[in-house]
Amino acid sequence: MNEFLQAALEEAKKSYSEGGIPIGSVLVHKGKIIGRGHNKRVQNGSPILHGEMDALENAGRQPAKVYQESVLYTTLSPCPMCSGTILLYGIPTVVVGENKSFMGEEELLKSRGVQVTVEDHPECYDLMQKFIREKPTVWNEDIGV
Amino acid sequence: MNEFLQAALEEAKKSYSEGGIPIGSVLVHKGKIIGRGHNKRVQNGSPILHGEMDALENAGRQPAKVYQESVLYTTLSPCPMCSGTILLYGIPTVVVGENKSFMGEEELLKSRGVQVTVEDHPECYDLMQKFIREKPTVWNEDIGV
Repeated sequence: MNEFLQAALEEAKKSYSEGGIPIGSVLVHKGKIIGRGHNKRVQNGSPILHGEMDALENAGRQPAKVYQESVLYTTLSPCPMCSGTILLYGIPTVVVGENKSFMGEEELLKSRGVQVTVEDHPECYDLMQKFIREKPTVWNEDIGV
Repeated sequence: MNEFLQAALEEAKKSYSEGGIPIGSVLVHKGKIIGRGHNKRVQNGSPILHGEMDALENAGRQPAKVYQESVLYTTLSPCPMCSGTILLYGIPTVVVGENKSFMGEEELLKSRGVQVTVEDHPECYDLMQKFIREKPTVWNEDIGV
């Protein structure tokens, strides 16, 4: 697995071990991780800290140029909120662990010129499926269902 | 002015008085404010706490049904991030103070069935314009420019 997707998966596993939703993300600028994070709905009672949002939050305030030169790695296809955030900051490239558990706004991203690559990684999928089986209500809450 | 847009404007003013970006928002469920917030880029060093996001964060974890019965008031047209969040949670109605300082993803929202009303309120506009004149760099950073 790509080392950065691996780092995102480590974040997802960390979240799972905390009792949270196992989705992780890292923001990579010029080959270096500048923010990493995981879903914190359970841990922080937050409706906005999806993995991608937490990675961006942890990267802190960055000049526009940094986002425009970055790659966002996420274990799961980005939802409308996270996709909108990718568009706001003009992040040009997104690498997705899997999109079988949840199909996010990949088409919207592509229509706006974002390059989206789906790795279809079994470990990302299996971890997500395990959580959805164990805590379907929390998962549904996270995607507004 | 509508009392809820007024409450959003109060949040915007609060942010301005803290040295922050003057955008405020409230989430209203069945005629009651369940979350209020303002942009916290400056105050918290946060790239994700736009006014709308802060209002949702402060409303805490809510069942899907609550969002689907709510109205989001915001002093400024919602950016891609905040619009994506509105779509994620299926918030059906958005009331916008003004969209002359910044035009957000109103067309995307409408295309997905969200009712968007723009009040074109001078006080929201004047406060925003004042800030943009005073701190153009911070404002540009907030919209990824």
